Amino acid sequence: MNNTEYSKYLFDKIKLLTSSSPGVTRETYGKGENLTHKFLIKELRKFSNSIDIDYGGNFLALYKGNSKKIVVIGSHLDSQNHGGNFDGLAGVLMGVVLIKMLYENNIKPHFTIGVMGIRGEESCWFPYSYIGSKIAVGKFDKNLLHSLKRSDSNQSLFYHINKSGFDAKKVSQGKVKFNLKDFKYFIEPHIEQGPVLERNKIPLGIVTSIRGSFRFRDAVCKGEYLHSGATPIDYRKDSVVAVSALVNEMNLYWQKQLGKGNDLTITFGEFYTDFEEHSFAKSAGHVSFCIDVRSNSNKILNATKKYLLNKIKRIEVKSKTKFYLGKETNSTPALMSKKLVRVFYDYSKLIKMKSIIMPSGAGHDSSVFANFGIPSIMLFIRNKNGSHNPKEYMNIKHFMDVFRVLFGVITKKL
Amino acid sequence: MNNTEYSKYLFDKIKLLTSSSPGVTRETYGKGENLTHKFLIKELRKFSNSIDIDYGGNFLALYKGNSKKIVVIGSHLDSQNHGGNFDGLAGVLMGVVLIKMLYENNIKPHFTIGVMGIRGEESCWFPYSYIGSKIAVGKFDKNLLHSLKRSDSNQSLFYHINKSGFDAKKVSQGKVKFNLKDFKYFIEPHIEQGPVLERNKIPLGIVTSIRGSFRFRDAVCKGEYLHSGATPIDYRKDSVVAVSALVNEMNLYWQKQLGKGNDLTITFGEFYTDFEEHSFAKSAGHVSFCIDVRSNSNKILNATKKYLLNKIKRIEVKSKTKFYLGKETNSTPALMSKKLVRVFYDYSKLIKMKSIIMPSGAGHDSSVFANFGIPSIMLFIRNKNGSHNPKEYMNIKHFMDVFRVLFGVITKKL
Repeated sequence: MNNTEYSKYLFDKIKLLTSSSPGVTRETYGKGENLTHKFLIKELRKFSNSIDIDYGGNFLALYKGNSKKIVVIGSHLDSQNHGGNFDGLAGVLMGVVLIKMLYENNIKPHFTIGVMGIRGEESCWFPYSYIGSKIAVGKFDKNLLHSLKRSDSNQSLFYHINKSGFDAKKVSQGKVKFNLKDFKYFIEPHIEQGPVLERNKIPLGIVTSIRGSFRFRDAVCKGEYLHSGATPIDYRKDSVVAVSALVNEMNLYWQKQLGKGNDLTITFGEFYTDFEEHSFAKSAGHVSFCIDVRSNSNKILNATKKYLLNKIKRIEVKSKTKFYLGKETNSTPALMSKKLVRVFYDYSKLIKMKSIIMPSGAGHDSSVFANFGIPSIMLFIRNKNGSHNPKEYMNIKHFMDVFRVLFGVITKKL
Repeated sequence: MNNTEYSKYLFDKIKLLTSSSPGVTRETYGKGENLTHKFLIKELRKFSNSIDIDYGGNFLALYKGNSKKIVVIGSHLDSQNHGGNFDGLAGVLMGVVLIKMLYENNIKPHFTIGVMGIRGEESCWFPYSYIGSKIAVGKFDKNLLHSLKRSDSNQSLFYHINKSGFDAKKVSQGKVKFNLKDFKYFIEPHIEQGPVLERNKIPLGIVTSIRGSFRFRDAVCKGEYLHSGATPIDYRKDSVVAVSALVNEMNLYWQKQLGKGNDLTITFGEFYTDFEEHSFAKSAGHVSFCIDVRSNSNKILNATKKYLLNKIKRIEVKSKTKFYLGKETNSTPALMSKKLVRVFYDYSKLIKMKSIIMPSGAGHDSSVFANFGIPSIMLFIRNKNGSHNPKEYMNIKHFMDVFRVLFGVITKKL
């Protein structure tokens, strides 16, 4: 099998293993994720010198180079419920194909190459991002091991780590298995989840930064259910009007920040009146909603939160409603290595592979390694129909385009 | 029993008959409504000269006066699901107490007095307003007899009319039982469903007009589910942003119309993203919502609809979404008799009963009789905690205050 055939074989095999019509399901510390790890570890034994698995179930397969310093290529192997086959998986498979090629052609690179399969990146299973990579670098907050419950089973993360055969107690002690001080670079190939590469017909995006975020996943606005005909405007306490005003104000704020050149996204993905009580003939007394705010700058995140809280205060007074934002979750923005951006961009120009330099709107494991102090880079692969859905589609040709750049950089430029 | 005691007895008896904790349930052509009609017909036999029931199950009890021309006092006897005990019922009971008093004191008024119990006013059972009163005046659209299904049974209006013992076929032929040309006036006492009388501590509201309406009960806005971090603002097709913009724009329009002295309410009582697909990490691709617009002026209703449709077109372009408003239902505004407003207002001043002149925001059966050409009036009774809910509360003292005005006008001024 040539590299293209082998890559296709791996994608198809894992799709079959974790199929859950429509799409695939690879639950964090669940059946789909476990099967994928097991299959890839078996596959990697063919080409690697050693494979280690840490207390949280992340694997690291090594292919020895001249230096013991490691260039790690990795990403996560879990997926959304009925998600797409390429999200995360593409990054790990590119590492697998890379060391297969080094092995079969008997090439010894300067640095040792590590292929890493990471657990639990998707926050749909446990309401928390980057579980696996945070465990890998010893930065996982042990207090969450018992409090985080998986959305499908309602069992704790502690339970699921142990049930999958790993050691939640060691995780709770902050124990780290991998030799992080030898990690020279962290490289994460990943499908682009937005439309930029597809619309511009460019196979490779070289990522400069990964956004951080703050989220209120369970916010509520309470007003009063009042007769839609009999209640004059001054007597109303309309939650739909209140939350709509907030959506509008935050959308205007977003546009203004973009105008100033600041990086930001603001999304109200859920917005719903109460099915038990709402009716066309009453102003709404209850709206549930969520807010997701992302930026590559902590300063902008803080300024946006301040603006949001102020706006809410004003809207509460005007609409005679009350907002309850509930628990906040967040993640920290991260900068990718400028040196690596330059190296990959120059090499892609050298071999006449089209690429663009871009920020990542979505969060990724690389941010954990970058914030831990390991120079990191992400390589986005052109992808169609968005991500987190069964229609997600990466052409294998674009995967191989990015692979060529990675292979060249690894063997010639690092 | 004096009138107060008798009124309380009637309210309590019917509450008990139709209790459905919390509150009462009197389904249109269902158990609660049927029991109420049956009980009141039995009660009315004690004081009236004759009782007639029409093909749609409305009753009309007559108490003879010097003229065969009839002053009808009536309202509806159905309620919302788990609704309040006073809505509608108060109007009919005031008629019952009136002819009991005339009977027991052997008073012969100038006009014959009719007490009318009307079927199916609440559009929560069949998605259509004023079924009973429209049948009474022969204006019910026969095409709807089979297409309207009751929300709890999913059986047709035709089926339920017959099942309750009436004649849906005659209704479909537009047959009218009551002698409408003798209807001199239609008087509908009714609890106020808004907060105006309660907040101003006034027992009686004399109604000048009843709002008409147009409604889109099943509107949808379709966009696209896209990654909340990875999708730049220009690529978004966000339904929450689109519908929020519409809510905002229509709320501003409403305020502007009020500033010009125009009568209007605009309510978005339901607004919900799709539970199967929405998530905090995606911009929303689907929002369901409804709009209820009311005014006492057809001109304003038409202007508002035009404005709404134009706004939607602009928002569709700007947000790259598509709106589908679905089926429209509507009702016609009605003016109450200026002469009757004057008579009731002057008489309440004469006996030093506080009253105010006000429009009705909610729809009522009176609008059907008024638009049919019968001079009509509504007398609002002070009521607490809104309406269409179990907490609805009318103090019997305020009921008797309004009764005194009605009795005086009937016996001395008409």
